[in-house]
Amino acid sequence: MHFHHHGYVSGDPRVQPAAGVGIDRPTQLPDEVDVLIVGTGPAGMLAAAQLSQFPDVTTRIVERRAGRLAIGQADGIQARSVETFQAFGFAERIIAEAYRITEMAFWKPDPQNPAKIVRSARTLDDPGGISEFPHLIVNQARVLDYFGEFMANSPSRMSPDYGYEFLGLEVGEGEYPVSVTLLHTAGPDEGQTRIVRAKYVVGADGARSKVRASIGCTMAGDQANHAWGVMDVLANTDFPDIRLKCAIQSHDGGSILLIPREGGHLFRMYVDLGEVPADDNGAVRKTTIEQIIAKANAIIQPYTLDVRNVAWHSVYEVGHRLTDRFDDVLPEDLGTRTPRVFITGDACHTHSAKAGQGMNVSMQDGFNIGWKLGHVLEGRSPESLLSTYSAERQVVAKDLIDFDKVWSTLMAKKPEEFENPSELEDFYVRTAEFPAGFMTEYSPSMVVAEATHQELATGFPVGKRFKSAPVVRVCDTNPVQLGHQATADGRWRIYVFADPAAPGAPSPTTDLAAWLANGPDSPLAATPEGADRDAWFDVKVVYQQDHTAIDIGAVPAVFKPEVGPFKLTYLEKVYGTDPAADIFELRGLDRGGVVVVVRPDQYVANVLPLTATAELAAFFAPLLRTGNRAPEFQDHAG
Amino acid sequence: MHFHHHGYVSGDPRVQPAAGVGIDRPTQLPDEVDVLIVGTGPAGMLAAAQLSQFPDVTTRIVERRAGRLAIGQADGIQARSVETFQAFGFAERIIAEAYRITEMAFWKPDPQNPAKIVRSARTLDDPGGISEFPHLIVNQARVLDYFGEFMANSPSRMSPDYGYEFLGLEVGEGEYPVSVTLLHTAGPDEGQTRIVRAKYVVGADGARSKVRASIGCTMAGDQANHAWGVMDVLANTDFPDIRLKCAIQSHDGGSILLIPREGGHLFRMYVDLGEVPADDNGAVRKTTIEQIIAKANAIIQPYTLDVRNVAWHSVYEVGHRLTDRFDDVLPEDLGTRTPRVFITGDACHTHSAKAGQGMNVSMQDGFNIGWKLGHVLEGRSPESLLSTYSAERQVVAKDLIDFDKVWSTLMAKKPEEFENPSELEDFYVRTAEFPAGFMTEYSPSMVVAEATHQELATGFPVGKRFKSAPVVRVCDTNPVQLGHQATADGRWRIYVFADPAAPGAPSPTTDLAAWLANGPDSPLAATPEGADRDAWFDVKVVYQQDHTAIDIGAVPAVFKPEVGPFKLTYLEKVYGTDPAADIFELRGLDRGGVVVVVRPDQYVANVLPLTATAELAAFFAPLLRTGNRAPEFQDHAG
Repeated sequence: MHFHHHGYVSGDPRVQPAAGVGIDRPTQLPDEVDVLIVGTGPAGMLAAAQLSQFPDVTTRIVERRAGRLAIGQADGIQARSVETFQAFGFAERIIAEAYRITEMAFWKPDPQNPAKIVRSARTLDDPGGISEFPHLIVNQARVLDYFGEFMANSPSRMSPDYGYEFLGLEVGEGEYPVSVTLLHTAGPDEGQTRIVRAKYVVGADGARSKVRASIGCTMAGDQANHAWGVMDVLANTDFPDIRLKCAIQSHDGGSILLIPREGGHLFRMYVDLGEVPADDNGAVRKTTIEQIIAKANAIIQPYTLDVRNVAWHSVYEVGHRLTDRFDDVLPEDLGTRTPRVFITGDACHTHSAKAGQGMNVSMQDGFNIGWKLGHVLEGRSPESLLSTYSAERQVVAKDLIDFDKVWSTLMAKKPEEFENPSELEDFYVRTAEFPAGFMTEYSPSMVVAEATHQELATGFPVGKRFKSAPVVRVCDTNPVQLGHQATADGRWRIYVFADPAAPGAPSPTTDLAAWLANGPDSPLAATPEGADRDAWFDVKVVYQQDHTAIDIGAVPAVFKPEVGPFKLTYLEKVYGTDPAADIFELRGLDRGGVVVVVRPDQYVANVLPLTATAELAAFFAPLLRTGNRAPEFQDHAG
Repeated sequence: MHFHHHGYVSGDPRVQPAAGVGIDRPTQLPDEVDVLIVGTGPAGMLAAAQLSQFPDVTTRIVERRAGRLAIGQADGIQARSVETFQAFGFAERIIAEAYRITEMAFWKPDPQNPAKIVRSARTLDDPGGISEFPHLIVNQARVLDYFGEFMANSPSRMSPDYGYEFLGLEVGEGEYPVSVTLLHTAGPDEGQTRIVRAKYVVGADGARSKVRASIGCTMAGDQANHAWGVMDVLANTDFPDIRLKCAIQSHDGGSILLIPREGGHLFRMYVDLGEVPADDNGAVRKTTIEQIIAKANAIIQPYTLDVRNVAWHSVYEVGHRLTDRFDDVLPEDLGTRTPRVFITGDACHTHSAKAGQGMNVSMQDGFNIGWKLGHVLEGRSPESLLSTYSAERQVVAKDLIDFDKVWSTLMAKKPEEFENPSELEDFYVRTAEFPAGFMTEYSPSMVVAEATHQELATGFPVGKRFKSAPVVRVCDTNPVQLGHQATADGRWRIYVFADPAAPGAPSPTTDLAAWLANGPDSPLAATPEGADRDAWFDVKVVYQQDHTAIDIGAVPAVFKPEVGPFKLTYLEKVYGTDPAADIFELRGLDRGGVVVVVRPDQYVANVLPLTATAELAAFFAPLLRTGNRAPEFQDHAG
């Protein structure tokens, strides 16, 4: 954690100094905002939390409810989300209060006596070590709390504006082209409407999104035909795996997906209610909690379930639907205008809850759009950056729907319908990287380069998220995870994995450092006057030597920037390898050195040789509209 | 983390349900309290935090200042303290913001050119793996903040009463025998005094303690004769180890102890100001910050220090002083009465700051007295328990003074005075367990048994703190640290390390479980009517099998207590071994099984065979005044 460089901080260092719009932030929602986010679910809150790090941008997030969410429906937290929480500073805390999945059990009818279930298999949840982060289950309300805390502690001092329902919007002209009509749902003005004008609107208003409707997107997908009862309950039982994630299939009573929850007692059960007839007319939705409990008891024979308290329950029919686009640019207008309105999360993709994916994909929607809006609104980047959001996230949503269709169909299958008795657990193990959240691989675009030099860093695939590995910080000899040093501060990261020469000796690394520091076409040249040299680009170096062999005094200055009003030298960006876990070996890094460029949302954007300064400059040139080097953008600057 | 068992918890589960005096806690300091703690330093805050877990006890903590400490002087956090923070739920957060010491460097005059210093050695801070917790440096104000948060979240909803200065006390008769005179130092009543009557008073009011004076303790020790300038500064320098803990000795300019601090820039320097003449009359105290900086620059030649900002500085002379007793019972009254007033922390022991020990030992003072007061005031234990506080902590303080005398003398020595050039670093490495906080070994008393059966658990020495080791929780297959499952909730812990039989099969473990559950002389029989069966005793079992071989349904009921209003079965107290790190091997546990009893402050109290029910009953009998079994205590119950 980096602090004290603006002077001694006595209190919680997570509370950053207020800046920009955070210095005197209006309590009331203003009439004009840069970004209006609609909905405080996971997608909206992550986008808001990311934007809260851009204190020159006025971001407000409105919510129909009068206050905080008390109990949410989503609870699955994949490792990629915990990795994201780490960047937002609350991974350790949410891990401490969540349920952690380390194994999953599969129960099936006993071949000797099919009326009884028996455990047929146990599988490790992450047998391959996909991530150093755990797979968690915790109520979404707590996730939202933590994002809320992060934004409150951010320089912009952001907090949600509760009690506003989105009614509609129109996109017109001018500085604030999006005119949004809101309804007061609480407080003294309840029932009255008001207009807020925004530069950009992010719809994070759920499956029945009115923002989506207002920009004319259509949801396409299959019809629902299988119903599930879901309940969060406190119960006693003799079922031995009640604190394990279980897929339970009975001979004739359907199936259960059991998800233990935080706190040591609570669990969720998805209980199969069977096929829904076409003429059901919603009758299945009237299934009572008593009926769901009775059905669960029938499925888990010979065990019984004694429910003592019901925290929440519902009945739903599985549907898989996907929006045709994630923003307000019609296909025929692509390339002629940039978007003003975006939709995220459940507003874009609805599917079964049982793969535990929805909240996670939604948060990555928010992470993706958040920094892009920040960069455009701060004047760092051109508006064309915003077109990459829909292009990138549409593909991810499509993959999600496809995965969930297979998984939920498998879960609804009767045991005798499986060709291979271990089909369910085989699928679960085989596809582990997808539900853990690490299959996303963005295609080349203005923010993802072609993987021309991928062979220099085989463990950092271009377009996939930067997978951390251990290194040793030179100045304080601390062993750390390199990836965990990157916080959600909206900065690009340039990791220089050095050639074998001694630090500071004539070498490609030293030449690159000189160019980064002083080259007129270096991306760092775009950094605004007066800002710290690392304000936009966080440049770190990892030498191949172990830390005792690195003379920090000889390390080039670009890796030791002066920061803050006292111009203090910051030494924590210089690393050596850990001989017991050499990052060059672990990530397939070329011993001749390599540059890895990582986006603010943690995706690898480029892999280049140390000497490829021209390519590095060319990659960033279209992304930087400020500074001397990019006059082509200055005429559209907002 | 254990929650939801009283019903669904929507918010932060660290906020426990209010209970007892926390339900309608008076904002103003009442006239009568059970415990009055004087001073909100580390010792007082830890004692208060521990007592905040006893909601039937009215504890208040008063502080002369009008509010929170902004900048404190202590900053060294030994691993034992981080272990303690873990029990209070904030280890991960303070680790995230603290400086972590992993190595220490030693600098000495260059033999070729003694005017210049050179690095002579590097040592690992914890080469032997003394603890799974790190050694940290962070300002004490942050430690106090976290304890404050813990007590605010506790059932008693405690917070400090600021603006009260302790003037004096008298111990008389009656239910609230200690009459304390306080002065309002802030607010509308500033300058006025008031009387608060208490059952017990804890003096945590620092080196110039008035509580100590009021009970007639005397401080004995050596005269100060060596002066040090200390400064917390932000600076630039070419000294390469500025972010490492360093002992720096110059040929003729004295020495420096360099302690990097949290945040990446701040550091503390203890700069040698030399011997203080007997006729100095405090002149050395007038040394200016400029003089301290100049002296530091002289010592670190050929490097230079460019101080940009001074957060704090002071000059002090080393003194080593120790109080003759830690409570108000005069030697001649020992055994005839129990104490009413206790002193803790700097009120008992003052010494050099340079070993980074003071805050740590003070916190353990607070941990020691906190649960004992809670148990006595709740009626669990007789008042004689309180006499063990002074007996136990006096020895620890004496050891601290002795250690610090050697260390600070070594630090003040000139290089040419050392017989062995590596004497300083040899001492540092050789004594690592002491400064890490793990050398404390309480002698036999009513809360520490004779180590008669120590050979059954050689890795859990009776009287030393319970050193954690990995196990696997059966119900959810989570690998966990056994010791970390114990929170600072004031409970005794009984760890049953099972014999090799299958869980539930006829065996010594199963017999012990039956006796614990139903034996009329079992300590659990003392648990109050209506309370959960694990309210006073947290009983956990570790089987020798790995978790997949343990049928949780067959595990005896005492290890799966029913908790909360819904009588939910709690399954998280049943563990298997981790085949890759077998706790039986790691801690030298007898394969025939062993019982390890651990105190609420984490010290091992007893090691017994599984069959030693009579000895276990006999150990607890004098400690339990409530319940059917202990009529001998009922007549003195308060």
